[in-house]
Amino acid sequence: MSAEEIRAFIEAEFPGAVRFGAQIDAVASDRVIIRLPIRGGFLRPGETVSGPTLMTLADTAVYYLVLATVGPVALAFTTHLSIDFLRTGAPDAVLAEACALKRGKRLYVGRVEMWGGRDQPWHAASERGPRELLAHATVTYSIPPR
Amino acid sequence: MSAEEIRAFIEAEFPGAVRFGAQIDAVASDRVIIRLPIRGGFLRPGETVSGPTLMTLADTAVYYLVLATVGPVALAFTTHLSIDFLRTGAPDAVLAEACALKRGKRLYVGRVEMWGGRDQPWHAASERGPRELLAHATVTYSIPPR
Amino acid sequence: MSAEEIRAFIEAEFPGAVRFGAQIDAVASDRVIIRLPIRGGFLRPGETVSGPTLMTLADTAVYYLVLATVGPVALAFTTHLSIDFLRTGAPDAVLAEACALKRGKRLYVGRVEMWGGRDQPWHAASERGPRELLAHATVTYSIPPR
Amino acid sequence: MSAEEIRAFIEAEFPGAVRFGAQIDAVASDRVIIRLPIRGGFLRPGETVSGPTLMTLADTAVYYLVLATVGPVALAFTTHLSIDFLRTGAPDAVLAEACALKRGKRLYVGRVEMWGGRDQPWHAASERGPRELLAHATVTYSIPPR
Repeated sequence: MSAEEIRAFIEAEFPGAVRFGAQIDAVASDRVIIRLPIRGGFLRPGETVSGPTLMTLADTAVYYLVLATVGPVALAFTTHLSIDFLRTGAPDAVLAEACALKRGKRLYVGRVEMWGGRDQPWHAASERGPRELLAHATVTYSIPPR
Repeated sequence: MSAEEIRAFIEAEFPGAVRFGAQIDAVASDRVIIRLPIRGGFLRPGETVSGPTLMTLADTAVYYLVLATVGPVALAFTTHLSIDFLRTGAPDAVLAEACALKRGKRLYVGRVEMWGGRDQPWHAASERGPRELLAHATVTYSIPPR
Repeated sequence: MSAEEIRAFIEAEFPGAVRFGAQIDAVASDRVIIRLPIRGGFLRPGETVSGPTLMTLADTAVYYLVLATVGPVALAFTTHLSIDFLRTGAPDAVLAEACALKRGKRLYVGRVEMWGGRDQPWHAASERGPRELLAHATVTYSIPPR
Repeated sequence: MSAEEIRAFIEAEFPGAVRFGAQIDAVASDRVIIRLPIRGGFLRPGETVSGPTLMTLADTAVYYLVLATVGPVALAFTTHLSIDFLRTGAPDAVLAEACALKRGKRLYVGRVEMWGGRDQPWHAASERGPRELLAHATVTYSIPPR
């Protein structure tokens, strides 16, 4: 699925993901980049992006990667997620880059790097300023039989 | 901290946790039980509790356990979370039982079992009906120096 | 499979597991207890049980649990292992208690607690002296189709 | 520490690591590459590299990375390891590339990709032939205070 197809699918099927607000910046053959503009509700005391925000972002990024590379499988579901929180910070946006480690018939394993930085589309890379790695996750999805 | 002290601390410091809506059912010397009544926003397609809901619940349960057993450390933060999603389901509530695996000066490791069941306080155990294990997590918090 | 059947299966199929030296102390309907007497090769500097020893023990314990509860599936293989190392120590033996969190057709998830203590069979529980939790793991096996 | 200094340190302090047999192919400012020639004892039924072999390799790679980037900390120890096993295979060697995700004063988080391929030093990259990703791990070390 292309970025546009994923957007349409999410709007039709996942109202919760629409409310979450992650934007799709790039979709390639084995990689997806999404960007979450940070709102007040995503922060925790100490003015840092909250753990649940980053976990939701990681899970969302790999789901979009599954859609991009496997197709519109609404009932794919997460079986495991492991996340390391590396740095605290309150950036304008968090950019999540997900890539496929394994694309099996039954299990799909993705890796996600989450970077804090400016809130501007990823393809404006040369102007995007400094960024730092906030968290790193691996996420396994179970793919339903066709 | 007692259950009542944790509630007051959360209301003062963590508006996001108040909105999330987990209730504290029991606090013991090395164990905390919290209960999340399931609302529509916590479900995903297929009418099952969403992954982010369970991850947030696991993180919350271990944070409350840190408060109960270490004290009011607002700036403790999660360094790692690993979760296995075991079963799908749309119960009335999810009960999270968190216990301490390690209580170090720097690192605190908790384990959480998340059970789907009826939405009634845990101490009403004998009437609580059937339940099933939806997810299992381990969560590490970094404890700031005093 | 019973403890005796598992021993015979391992001797026939897994020479590496025989060399590792874990003893089967108990097999129940959803639980297996194995015990690893600690030899010099299992220690690392600081005279503490090494990480690879505990990881191998966790993986072994859940494999024996799969054998006990699913049957002689030689080609079941680990898809994920997550382990928290909680305390260092050089006990006489490490006791690993594995229980099933999920018994699916495709994925089997087990949890393992690893305790340091005396080197004596688990059923001699009342005399087994003090023990401490060295590590905690969750292990996922993929079960091949029949 | 340089590759040569790490080798001398390991020979003096970690006889178990010497027996394991991983070779140091490259050491850079934030990256270490080690290579494990596969012997019979590293295989399991089905003629595939065993899980414990890959877990030991991941733990070793991040320990060498800590040595390379922090210095000779014999008492650094692993607090957490999470590994995804992605493909089975019986290559001539497994190459482990470890990079630092976080270099904190107290916690060091490394990521390891483990590739199956030919048994030849990594710098002979252009001739090294096809390779495939067997496993992916994240490993956390606790760094002792100076």
